[in-house]
Amino acid sequence: MRTYRLALIGFGNVGQGLATILRDYGPTIAAQHGADYRIVAVNTVRKGRVYNPEGLDPGQLLQNCGVNQRLDDIPAPYTGWTVEQVIRESNAEVIIEMTASDLLTGQPATDYIRAAIAQDRHVITTNKGPVGLFYPELSAMAAERGVHLGVEGTVMGGTPVLRVGRELLAAAGVERIQGILNGTTNYILTRMAEGESYEAALREAQKKGYAEANPSADVDGYDAAIKIVILTNLLLGIPLKLENVEREGIGNLTTRDIVRAQQVGEVWKLVAWVERTPDMVKAAVRPIRLPATHPLAGISGATNAVTFVTKLLGEVTIVGPGAGRVETGYAVLSDLLEIHHRLNG
Amino acid sequence: MRTYRLALIGFGNVGQGLATILRDYGPTIAAQHGADYRIVAVNTVRKGRVYNPEGLDPGQLLQNCGVNQRLDDIPAPYTGWTVEQVIRESNAEVIIEMTASDLLTGQPATDYIRAAIAQDRHVITTNKGPVGLFYPELSAMAAERGVHLGVEGTVMGGTPVLRVGRELLAAAGVERIQGILNGTTNYILTRMAEGESYEAALREAQKKGYAEANPSADVDGYDAAIKIVILTNLLLGIPLKLENVEREGIGNLTTRDIVRAQQVGEVWKLVAWVERTPDMVKAAVRPIRLPATHPLAGISGATNAVTFVTKLLGEVTIVGPGAGRVETGYAVLSDLLEIHHRLNG
Repeated sequence: MRTYRLALIGFGNVGQGLATILRDYGPTIAAQHGADYRIVAVNTVRKGRVYNPEGLDPGQLLQNCGVNQRLDDIPAPYTGWTVEQVIRESNAEVIIEMTASDLLTGQPATDYIRAAIAQDRHVITTNKGPVGLFYPELSAMAAERGVHLGVEGTVMGGTPVLRVGRELLAAAGVERIQGILNGTTNYILTRMAEGESYEAALREAQKKGYAEANPSADVDGYDAAIKIVILTNLLLGIPLKLENVEREGIGNLTTRDIVRAQQVGEVWKLVAWVERTPDMVKAAVRPIRLPATHPLAGISGATNAVTFVTKLLGEVTIVGPGAGRVETGYAVLSDLLEIHHRLNG
Repeated sequence: MRTYRLALIGFGNVGQGLATILRDYGPTIAAQHGADYRIVAVNTVRKGRVYNPEGLDPGQLLQNCGVNQRLDDIPAPYTGWTVEQVIRESNAEVIIEMTASDLLTGQPATDYIRAAIAQDRHVITTNKGPVGLFYPELSAMAAERGVHLGVEGTVMGGTPVLRVGRELLAAAGVERIQGILNGTTNYILTRMAEGESYEAALREAQKKGYAEANPSADVDGYDAAIKIVILTNLLLGIPLKLENVEREGIGNLTTRDIVRAQQVGEVWKLVAWVERTPDMVKAAVRPIRLPATHPLAGISGATNAVTFVTKLLGEVTIVGPGAGRVETGYAVLSDLLEIHHRLNG
C-alpha cells in the first residue's frame, strides 16, 4: 500500500466530488489499486483553510461546507495557511488545483501550478485556463522536474476523452476532432428546441450548476474554444492558441430558428472542431444546423461528445457527462491513479 | 529502437490489414514509438507458409495474396513450416493468432495460443472463441510465464473498447455494459428498415465482408453473446460462460415488423448486455424495440457501440467501427504497442 497526501486548492463542486468519492470508495480504491489517498490540506476563499499533516476526514470536510460552518472549525494543528505556504511547507505530494480561475487569464490557477511544480509536487488541475493558455510551458516544466501534470478533468469532466485520444488513438492518426464540448449551451439549445426561451433556459442551466460563473464563457463559445485548444495541444501536439480559434456563440439564435429547423428534421448544435492537414491547422466553434441523423445531433442536455476522425480507424466517438460534481471528481481520481501506476510501474 | 519479430498465423482480412499498416506506417510508428515491427513468418492454409528470420516485406506479402499467387513463392530460407514449428523454432517474439477458428470450440486458435504461451512467446489474438471460452485459463497461463496476451481485437475491432473499460473506467464502478456488438445483424436491420428483405440484406452483408463464414454465428446472436462473455470476463472479472447468456437472434423479425416500428418512431436493434448486482450477474442478447431517441437507436450499418453504466460517471458510450481490415489490424497494432510500452516502462 502506498499513501499519497493531497492538498486541495479550492473546494467547490469538483473538490467536494473528490471528497465524496474518497469518503465512499476510499477503502475500495485502496484494496483494488494499492493506493491510499489522504487529504491533508484544503484551502478555500470563503470557507477557510485547514491543514493536518496526518490527514483530514473527507466526510467531515463535506459536512463543514454547509451553511454557517467553516472548514477551519475542524480541529487541526494548522489553520490559515496560504496556498503558497501549503505548496512550500506542507507534506502533500500532490497539489490538486480546483480554484475558481479566470478562463482568459488562467489566474490564479497558473501561478499555483507553477509554484507547485517548482516545489517538485505532482499537480492535478481541472482548470481549463492554465492548460489552454500555457500547456507547452507547464508540461515542459513538469517534465524537467520529473513530476506529473494531470489535466484529464479540463475537457468533458471525468469522461476519459484526453486519455482515449492520447493513449489509445494516437497511433491511428487523428486528423480531425469535433464535438459538443459545452454542456450549458447544449442544455440551452435542447430546452429551446422544446419551446423554452433563451433566458429561461440559461437560468435553468445556472440553477443546475452547469453554467460557468460568467455566462459569456459558455454562450459566446469561449469555454468550447479553450477545450478545442486543449485537445489540439495534447492530442495533436500543436501549440494552437485561443485567438487562433474562430468563434461564434449561440447569442444570435432564437427559439424560432431552432423550432423551425426542428420542423424539417434538423438540429442546431454548438460544434467545436479542429482539423489538421500536413501544412496547416484550422479550429472553430460555431452553431451548426445538423441533420437529425448526424451522430452529434442526438447528444442532448448536459451530455458532451467528441468524435475523433482517424486515418486507420475512421470515426470513433465518445459520449459522456461533460460536467458534474462526482463526475469531475472522478477525473481527478483517474489522474491520481495514473500517477500511482507510473510511480509503481 | 527495439525490434519485434512477428509470426502471423492466418493471413486473411486482419492479417492483411496489419501488413497494410506496417507497409504504409511502419517508419512513422518506429519514429513515434521506438518500436520496429518485422514480420518474419506467415502461415496460411491456402496460400502457403513462409519464414524468413531476417523479415519479410509487408508489401510483398500483400502482393502474393493475389489470385494465382502464393506466399511460398516469395524467396525465403524456409517454406512449409507448420504452425507448431514456427511457435517452437522460429525467432518470433510475438505470435499473432488470426486463424479462421470455430466460435464455439475456439479451435484451432486455442491450441496455438496455449502452445505459444508455453514457449514463452507473447500472444495477440483477434479470435473471439479462445477468449470467450478460455480467458481465465489462458490469462493465468500467460501471467505465469510472464508473457502478454493481447485480445483488443476480439470486441469492436480496433475501437479500443476493452482498454477503455479496463484501464480508464474500472475505478468508476461498471455496473452494466450494453451495446450493439454485431455489425452484420445491425447492417441487416438497418437495410431492412429501408425496405430490403432479410435475405437480400444478408447477402449484401456477406458481400461487404461483414458476415462471419457461418451466418448463424451472426444472426442467431452467438457472435454478440461471446463478445458479452469477453466483456464480462475482462471488465467485470466474472468468469461468465456462453451458456449463461440468454440468446435470441434476429430470425423472427420481418421487414414488416421493422417498417411498422419505424412508422411510430421506433427502431429494432439486436442489443447485448450484462448487468451485475452484488450477488448475481445476468447477460442476454435479444432484439429490442428502442425509441428513436435512445443512444443506441442511431447506431446504423456496420458501426458498433458500447455503453458503460457506471457508479461514478453515469453512462459513457463509445461508438466506432466494429470490423474491417485495417480497423482490426489497428487492434493488433495497439496490442503490439502495449507490449512495447510494458517492456520499456
